[in-house]
Amino acid sequence: MSDLSSLRNTVRAFANERDWDQFHSPKNLAAALSVEAAELLEHFQWLTEEESKQLSDSKRAAVRLELADVLIYLVRIADKLDIDLIAAANDKIALNAIKYPADKAKGSMRKYTEL
Amino acid sequence: MSDLSSLRNTVRAFANERDWDQFHSPKNLAAALSVEAAELLEHFQWLTEEESKQLSDSKRAAVRLELADVLIYLVRIADKLDIDLIAAANDKIALNAIKYPADKAKGSMRKYTEL
Amino acid sequence: MSDLSSLRNTVRAFANERDWDQFHSPKNLAAALSVEAAELLEHFQWLTEEESKQLSDSKRAAVRLELADVLIYLVRIADKLDIDLIAAANDKIALNAIKYPADKAKGSMRKYTEL
Amino acid sequence: MSDLSSLRNTVRAFANERDWDQFHSPKNLAAALSVEAAELLEHFQWLTEEESKQLSDSKRAAVRLELADVLIYLVRIADKLDIDLIAAANDKIALNAIKYPADKAKGSMRKYTEL
Repeated sequence: MSDLSSLRNTVRAFANERDWDQFHSPKNLAAALSVEAAELLEHFQWLTEEESKQLSDSKRAAVRLELADVLIYLVRIADKLDIDLIAAANDKIALNAIKYPADKAKGSMRKYTEL
Repeated sequence: MSDLSSLRNTVRAFANERDWDQFHSPKNLAAALSVEAAELLEHFQWLTEEESKQLSDSKRAAVRLELADVLIYLVRIADKLDIDLIAAANDKIALNAIKYPADKAKGSMRKYTEL
Repeated sequence: MSDLSSLRNTVRAFANERDWDQFHSPKNLAAALSVEAAELLEHFQWLTEEESKQLSDSKRAAVRLELADVLIYLVRIADKLDIDLIAAANDKIALNAIKYPADKAKGSMRKYTEL
Repeated sequence: MSDLSSLRNTVRAFANERDWDQFHSPKNLAAALSVEAAELLEHFQWLTEEESKQLSDSKRAAVRLELADVLIYLVRIADKLDIDLIAAANDKIALNAIKYPADKAKGSMRKYTEL
C-alpha cells in the first residue's frame, strides 16, 4: 500500500474511534486545513527569507509538526471526497507545464495570464 | 520510491527548469501554501455542510485541483526543509492520540486543553 | 478625527515605541493579517452555522479580540501603503453593486461570473 | 455617525437587498474573511519585502480593493456579533501593551511568552 493510502487509513481510524466523522464535512475540513496552513505561516511571518532557510532546531521541530497537521487534514478531506491526491497533483503539474512553459516562465513569478 | 518522494522529485525538477528556486524560500512557500488552502476554502464558504458533501462534477473537479496545489506546495516546502512528511504525520498522530484519548474525546471537538 | 484615523495613529505609535517598523513591510503585514483571520476562523471551524450565531460569553469575548487583531493589522498595512480604508470600501461596494445587481443576485451566492 | 458605523449600515443594506442574510452566519463570514485575507497575501507572496514597499500603480490599486474586501467582511461579521470594532481594538492594544512592554519588546518580534 502506498504511503498516502496507509496514512489515510490511520487518520480514518483515528477519527472513527473518536466519533469525529460527524464534524468532518468537506467544508469544515477545508476550514481546518486553512487554519493549519496559517499556523505554519505564523512561524515565518516576521522572519526574513534568509532566516526562514536557517531555522533553529526547536523552530524546525515545531514547523515539522505544522506540516504534519496540514498533511493530515489534506489526506482527510481527500478521503471524504474520494480524491486520489497523487493523481490530482500529477494532473495539476501537467496543466502547470502548459500554463508556465519553461522558456517563458524562466526566472519569473508572473502569473500565467501575464506571461 | 514512495509516491511522495516521486512527487517531490517532479516538483523539484519543475522548479529547477524554471529557475524558481530563488523564489522558493520556506517563508514564501508557507505563504503560497496558505493562499492555496484559502482557494480551496473559497469553494466551500457559502455551502452548507450537507452541500459540501454533494459537490457537482464541475465543482469537484475544481476542488480536486485545489487539493493538488496544496499538496504540491506542501511537498515543496518539506523538500526545502528536508522534512519527511509521512514520518512527521505519524509522529503528530501519536502525539494527538495522547492529547485526545478516544474515551475522553469521543463525539467532542473541544480542544485537548479543555478535555 | 475619524475612528480609523485615530486607531491608525495609536497603532503607529505602538509600533514606533517598540522599533517594529523594520518588521512591518506590507508583505509581512499581509501574512500577519492572514494568520489573524485564521485564528478567528479557528473558533468557528467545528461549529454548525447555528452554533456560530449563539456563542457563549467566553467564546464571544475571545472572538472579539480576534476581530480586533484583524482590524489592527488591516489598519497598519493600509497606513504603510497610504490607503484610505473607508474610501476603498466604498469604491469596492460600488463595484460590487454592478457585479451583483440586486435582482439577479437575490438569494444566490453564485459568483458574478456565473450570474 | 462614525465612519465604521456608516460602512456597517451600507454593507447591511447591500446584503439585505440581495437576501444574503441567510448565508451570513458568523462561521461563513469568518471563512470569507480568511479567503479575502489570502487574496491580499497572494499579491505579496513572491515579492521581496522591499518590492512590497514599492508597488506599481496597478498592483497598488488591486491591493487597495483587497483591503476593502477584508474590511467589508470584518465590518459584517462584527455587525452580526454585535461587536464594536474600535472599542475591541482599543482593548486589544491595551492588552498588547502589557504583553509587550516597550523596553522588553524593543526591536524584537519574539512572542510575549518568550520575552
